Amino acid sequence: MPNLYFCIPKNDAVYFDEHEVTHMKVMRIKEGEIIDATDGNGGKYKVIVKEIGKNEAHGNVLNYEFVAPTDGRLVLFAPSGRWERLRWTIEKAVELGVDEIYVFNNEHASRHYDDKQEKLELIVREASKQCVRYHFPSIRSIEFLDIFSIAPESTYILDFKGRKIPKRISKSVGIIAGPEGGFSKKEIKLLKERFKSVCLGKKILRFETAVILSTGIFAMKLGKI
Amino acid sequence: MPNLYFCIPKNDAVYFDEHEVTHMKVMRIKEGEIIDATDGNGGKYKVIVKEIGKNEAHGNVLNYEFVAPTDGRLVLFAPSGRWERLRWTIEKAVELGVDEIYVFNNEHASRHYDDKQEKLELIVREASKQCVRYHFPSIRSIEFLDIFSIAPESTYILDFKGRKIPKRISKSVGIIAGPEGGFSKKEIKLLKERFKSVCLGKKILRFETAVILSTGIFAMKLGKI
Repeated sequence: MPNLYFCIPKNDAVYFDEHEVTHMKVMRIKEGEIIDATDGNGGKYKVIVKEIGKNEAHGNVLNYEFVAPTDGRLVLFAPSGRWERLRWTIEKAVELGVDEIYVFNNEHASRHYDDKQEKLELIVREASKQCVRYHFPSIRSIEFLDIFSIAPESTYILDFKGRKIPKRISKSVGIIAGPEGGFSKKEIKLLKERFKSVCLGKKILRFETAVILSTGIFAMKLGKI
Repeated sequence: MPNLYFCIPKNDAVYFDEHEVTHMKVMRIKEGEIIDATDGNGGKYKVIVKEIGKNEAHGNVLNYEFVAPTDGRLVLFAPSGRWERLRWTIEKAVELGVDEIYVFNNEHASRHYDDKQEKLELIVREASKQCVRYHFPSIRSIEFLDIFSIAPESTYILDFKGRKIPKRISKSVGIIAGPEGGFSKKEIKLLKERFKSVCLGKKILRFETAVILSTGIFAMKLGKI
């Protein structure tokens, strides 16, 4: 894991929470050492570590630089479902430069993540640190119907019966990945009334392959990766 | 797992080896049942199971159909390295319609698979059955220098410093994925003298993400998926 730490800026200092303290301990960081950190909002810091406590650490900023966000908006709607699969989807989406992730509840969902906001954010944080992203994507658990108010106009449903991914896409794109058990009839009807479907070819791909491939292609088109 | 079995045709009957017997036992297949099978060479069989022995089973063919292979040739050169990563690469390549897989030895390789032909073929077989491919891709362990005699003319090195994947590609395409520890200086020099480099964007992606994404994009262009 590259040594990027998540910090919370406060006046001229930065603070690190318990998860970052754990990361520092794993990396055997000592007080007085210089580390790279980010606030997840574009801030790139060089920090000299002043004190490492049990649940918190703090340091002084030696250098600060703002990394501009990429243009455009890439939004992933991922179905709530088994944790390992969701975790993997979030990690890959972060790596592929997605800006917003929404975990949506649906009729066939076996799990809900409404009360797991911190858990979701931690996955995003760890994944962002690993691939050195200075802008952490936002993540939130939503209800199925919220998709309609959040989704960019150019949002596509990943669907075996869809069209090819268009050559030219707009600056804001959404991708809706279906749940393991499929959408309910009512859900798919509502989705298709509003959004277009895209598919990646004539063969049904596994969930994770379809998500990586489609997110990657949109990310390339938008210059996110 | 879909219930597709690998069979060896012999006169009017088909035989199943010990691995297929295990699969049948897991699926609780009984003698007299009808199953779907493939010989991995385009043959699609309906088979009535006649006898399930300890290490072998056999059945009679009720129906045979030849599934034509897709046009074009998609070849993946995957570095020998840790087994779990190689296994995953093979599984995804099979799902994405690759025709030939070569596991190449290289200077920085920690592992070799020269004497693991059966192990490699079994992974291809299982992956092909899972994604219902009637043409199993070939797989073989080769030496680094063999790449030059095997690779199609349009073969691309996945390289962070490469160009974009071209819009139009030829009917036969090769993809070379680099090993975990990178190619040696000598190796990369030889490769670059002969092949072009492609990259997927401005960010370095993890091995598995880069392999899925590039293989998937070439597979889509070639109509393999």
